[in-house]
Amino acid sequence: MTESRYYVQTRRPSGLPEKELFELRSSTLPALESGEVRIRNRWLSVDPYMRGRMDGVSTYIEPFELEEPLEGGALGEVIESRHDGFGVGDRVIHMGGWRDVAQLPGDQIQHLPQHDVPEQAFLGVLGMPGMTAWLGLEHIAGLQSGDRVLVSAASGAVGSLAAQLAHLKGCDVVGTAGSSAKREWLEAHGIRAVNHRQSVEALTRDLQQAAPEGIDVYYENVGGAMLEAALNVINPFGRIAVCGMIAHYNDAEPAPGPSNITHILLRRLRMQGFIVLEHMEHYAQFVSEVGPRVERGEIDYEETVFEGLKQTPDAFLSLFEGGNTGKMLVRLEGADEA
Amino acid sequence: MTESRYYVQTRRPSGLPEKELFELRSSTLPALESGEVRIRNRWLSVDPYMRGRMDGVSTYIEPFELEEPLEGGALGEVIESRHDGFGVGDRVIHMGGWRDVAQLPGDQIQHLPQHDVPEQAFLGVLGMPGMTAWLGLEHIAGLQSGDRVLVSAASGAVGSLAAQLAHLKGCDVVGTAGSSAKREWLEAHGIRAVNHRQSVEALTRDLQQAAPEGIDVYYENVGGAMLEAALNVINPFGRIAVCGMIAHYNDAEPAPGPSNITHILLRRLRMQGFIVLEHMEHYAQFVSEVGPRVERGEIDYEETVFEGLKQTPDAFLSLFEGGNTGKMLVRLEGADEA
Repeated sequence: MTESRYYVQTRRPSGLPEKELFELRSSTLPALESGEVRIRNRWLSVDPYMRGRMDGVSTYIEPFELEEPLEGGALGEVIESRHDGFGVGDRVIHMGGWRDVAQLPGDQIQHLPQHDVPEQAFLGVLGMPGMTAWLGLEHIAGLQSGDRVLVSAASGAVGSLAAQLAHLKGCDVVGTAGSSAKREWLEAHGIRAVNHRQSVEALTRDLQQAAPEGIDVYYENVGGAMLEAALNVINPFGRIAVCGMIAHYNDAEPAPGPSNITHILLRRLRMQGFIVLEHMEHYAQFVSEVGPRVERGEIDYEETVFEGLKQTPDAFLSLFEGGNTGKMLVRLEGADEA
Repeated sequence: MTESRYYVQTRRPSGLPEKELFELRSSTLPALESGEVRIRNRWLSVDPYMRGRMDGVSTYIEPFELEEPLEGGALGEVIESRHDGFGVGDRVIHMGGWRDVAQLPGDQIQHLPQHDVPEQAFLGVLGMPGMTAWLGLEHIAGLQSGDRVLVSAASGAVGSLAAQLAHLKGCDVVGTAGSSAKREWLEAHGIRAVNHRQSVEALTRDLQQAAPEGIDVYYENVGGAMLEAALNVINPFGRIAVCGMIAHYNDAEPAPGPSNITHILLRRLRMQGFIVLEHMEHYAQFVSEVGPRVERGEIDYEETVFEGLKQTPDAFLSLFEGGNTGKMLVRLEGADEA
């Protein structure tokens, strides 16, 4: 008899969710069926995109069901298996997060790739966030060496990798971040830092100073005033990879779009949204390119770690207050010290 | 001694230009220099993009100089030549419009292609507007047979060809137009017609009715509420070719952009602006594909013709009041009757 403790969402939020909307529940798991695997989670991922699933609306992914276990990236150890591909003790990644023990069909579970990195890196720099950064630059924006690059929210899980990957490719990179500590981190990594918590006018001026020759590629994580300022400083034939627009995820009412949308025409821009889950055929290429660079220490990745399952809602909500540098994680009992 | 009569712009407009801003001037042309050609114009083109050149701002093209002859597409007959490639009587197209007699270096002039169509077609269906329609669909949006297509301002010079080209390719096409006569013209050509002079909400509802399965390609000529409504009905992985945003050309102050800009991410859209002059390497392919279809009468093209040089400002300003069906032209003395 194994108990699973998990978070549910009790109602749909309007604007920034209240913490009370998340409730911890517990239930006894049924016996494994053939093909299923039981996993004790060690690390949980919380990510901005989850906010979209909390509304009751289907977008590219189904909404969370009320009163059902929430989902998200997680890493754990197999404790029981009725699937030939997995044995007790195997370390795996899967989407059964927001809980301590997950029970899933084996085809929804993957072994960790073989790289000499701390295990939780596979939820961050070598997982979805890292692949998102790499894919947006390489496959969506068509990054070329020598491009001038702007990354917004450049200290976040995705942005910090996008900024470093572009820098490693020989690009001039400007990154934005909301706190001076985060901007210092960026500057220490060769990335010119700009405060994105400003008006369009102030942001535009600061971006012009940081990138006097304009930008060719904009890696978009923020939206709102940030997008409008980026459209002010982007060069003709610029490419915009739209990975996220966190400024809008808690909008209760639609907010006006950028008043300089005509720049898409005047500057012949290409702007494209993407979702990493639809490009997983490139995962092996991503890991083979980026994995060795992480092993050699060429890519720095930060983590912000909350301790214990009960901190999961706080960790998630903190994302919208800029509470993380790098990947936001929740460490559960039994996780290795990083 | 040949006189040239031409229009100048006496000051920069704010908003919709006043007619008095355009003044007719006259001057005696100097003797031809080596390599130059003198042309008596028969047809002048006026186009929405010219509005951008009237502001004193460089975009993809230099602004018009105050008190200098305005420019634009024109078709005429060579009356004197000091260039080996051109002889008296040759029919040519060039950018020396807004005037009756033009004098230009031969490398800025082209002979008419050989097709059995009225000559002014080379300012419309087989000229820049036609190439703009074709290029946006084929090279920017990557149109596929079976795509569901929306064309805004679908009775204009560019839109009416984009809608027909998509229809000929086997696509379901919805076109928008601002008058009932224009919508009847669209319906008669197999294109479902929607009135674009409506609120976002009404437009969205009408588009949903006209395209119940959504749209895959949006050929954008308008901007404003039209773009916002299109973003409401576009399908995942939709492509938007941005050819124009006429709703914004006379904005004295920046207007808010679409409040649903996040759809670019949520629906993984690709939106790209383009300027036909930067893709002229495809002109021969365009004429060889579309020319025979025009000769065979498979593509219908409308013209709205103003008579005489003095009507040029009226013809231009009428573009912003929806005064044209199809290509807006000015016919000068000596032009053939179409």
